[in-house]
Amino acid sequence: MSKTSAREVHLIARPIGAMQHEHIDTISVELPSLQNGDLLVRNQFMSVDPYMLGRMQGSINYIEPFKLGEAMVGEAVGKVLESKHPDFSAGDYVQHFFGWRDQFVCPGESARVISRIKGVSLDAHLDIMSNTTGMAAYAGMLDIAKIQNGEAVFITAGAGAVGAAACQIALALGCRVVASAGSKQKVNWLENDIGIHKAFNYRDFDSAESFDRALADAFPDGIDVTFENVGGFQLEAALSQMNNHGRIVLCGLIAYYEEDYNNDWSVNTGPRNFIQIADKWLRVQGFHAPDYADRMPEMEQRIGQWIADGQIQSRTTIMQGLDSAVDAMSGIMAGKNTGKMMIQV
Amino acid sequence: MSKTSAREVHLIARPIGAMQHEHIDTISVELPSLQNGDLLVRNQFMSVDPYMLGRMQGSINYIEPFKLGEAMVGEAVGKVLESKHPDFSAGDYVQHFFGWRDQFVCPGESARVISRIKGVSLDAHLDIMSNTTGMAAYAGMLDIAKIQNGEAVFITAGAGAVGAAACQIALALGCRVVASAGSKQKVNWLENDIGIHKAFNYRDFDSAESFDRALADAFPDGIDVTFENVGGFQLEAALSQMNNHGRIVLCGLIAYYEEDYNNDWSVNTGPRNFIQIADKWLRVQGFHAPDYADRMPEMEQRIGQWIADGQIQSRTTIMQGLDSAVDAMSGIMAGKNTGKMMIQV
Repeated sequence: MSKTSAREVHLIARPIGAMQHEHIDTISVELPSLQNGDLLVRNQFMSVDPYMLGRMQGSINYIEPFKLGEAMVGEAVGKVLESKHPDFSAGDYVQHFFGWRDQFVCPGESARVISRIKGVSLDAHLDIMSNTTGMAAYAGMLDIAKIQNGEAVFITAGAGAVGAAACQIALALGCRVVASAGSKQKVNWLENDIGIHKAFNYRDFDSAESFDRALADAFPDGIDVTFENVGGFQLEAALSQMNNHGRIVLCGLIAYYEEDYNNDWSVNTGPRNFIQIADKWLRVQGFHAPDYADRMPEMEQRIGQWIADGQIQSRTTIMQGLDSAVDAMSGIMAGKNTGKMMIQV
Repeated sequence: MSKTSAREVHLIARPIGAMQHEHIDTISVELPSLQNGDLLVRNQFMSVDPYMLGRMQGSINYIEPFKLGEAMVGEAVGKVLESKHPDFSAGDYVQHFFGWRDQFVCPGESARVISRIKGVSLDAHLDIMSNTTGMAAYAGMLDIAKIQNGEAVFITAGAGAVGAAACQIALALGCRVVASAGSKQKVNWLENDIGIHKAFNYRDFDSAESFDRALADAFPDGIDVTFENVGGFQLEAALSQMNNHGRIVLCGLIAYYEEDYNNDWSVNTGPRNFIQIADKWLRVQGFHAPDYADRMPEMEQRIGQWIADGQIQSRTTIMQGLDSAVDAMSGIMAGKNTGKMMIQV
């Protein structure tokens, strides 16, 4: 029997700050032959997310660091080329966590068959319908924020993958949505294509004070829900404009991801007006999207239908090939993506 | 008909920082005669709380400032001397919000008759069974933290009024309780009289790092719930030791109350390791005890029974007379009280 070879991206050195070419190596491996229960999967798209940089650095506590000298992992979608598992057939599309390689032998229990919906492209399943991006927006808005029709919602990094999903879910549920983004082009996309009420280019502001004044104008009746992906002065201004009993979904704090923030006392990540959480009886809550994995089929159907109906859209920035890994990661940390950053393998 | 005179404490100037004698004046007034629906109430005990300083300063957003030239208000318990309301009789004890005066004419709908329970002294109704102190601990632990039997609970300012109530409610519900306080005497009281697992004198520590190490020793399996009354380095150390999915009840942040923190950008109230709220999927929540007013009778019965059974105790620091107002407020801001600070009118 002929052997199948594959290419994998290995971590060979831990970044302190940004990811560079010296931290990874792309190597060829020979795949083992399929055992009963296994699938041979050809990856189509793999996700590139800010949290992966933390796994490379070894700087986040909630998920083990990537191991040096081994292939990295991450969410991906692929096509089953061969199946020795009764629940899968060749030709199925599957969602799994073995990104950073072009093909591989997958235990059947580690993959989930995607329900393809007419009018929904495959890459959307790694974006607005994925376990990480899509579920972060869906569970964040529905389970954590518990948004209600007519509420005023502020979303930071609204043109990012999770942010764009969050904007569209909030719109679909009848909220008034204002978001921030990092370029004029993204602001235009959010206002004109996505159709939110107002978008800001946060780079136009140099302080919490000036951003606070802009938010006050955009939210004359205050903010009910903030969906926070950034931190820094945007979070301070949001706290300042929150209504009593408001909710702040802490999805991410990308402002600090290139710092060695695990040394708690040297990097200051706290909003200066933290006391407003107490004074305005706010709820500020982090959450872990994979905790909601059992609701993937429900989310896939609901968001898939919104896409098919033209009510929401998946927007992706797709880099080509495993060799674009460093460009993809530095691109997302620099905010060069609009929507979900991914690599077409 | 002879007129009844009363003494009232008026706010005559706003404190910037601490309250001083120059900010108040105690004056005599003549009370109006009772109309139908009114009660004449003789106050017995009135509450002195840190938030009142904020109302004097005009520095908190969630409750209107005390008006200059008018009597201040606050929670109090008194005895009905005369009633023109069908639900009240002379001799009833009532809870109301017209402290800072010795007697007054009270609209019946602004008072609530206390259920006296055998073995429970009157001042306990202004402490561990009150709408502000008792309900802050009760709703904070039950509704916000949702503490479970066996959980590890950290309480800052554990010898303060709310803190001592919170410690005892957590103990009664089977939690492992560790608290901080501001003197060796309070630490001894918490460990020996209240019977919590461990207490710290926060004045023995000069940084988040050193307090963090002490908390790590006291919580080998991490903290599930923090009941936060203080802020500052104690909150930073607590965040550092929180378990994933932990809850932080933000009851108060007394560390900042003497600052003009309403100017959000000049006083830094944010924990440097705020990012751990996102990384450990924590829920940090402020709340407003008066929102739970409809559960006063339930709380009064449950805590009253715990007191009558000897399972928990009310501990109060009682100053004598309206003229002790400044001493009482400066005492509570300096942490001189053990348990609830009040004035016997």
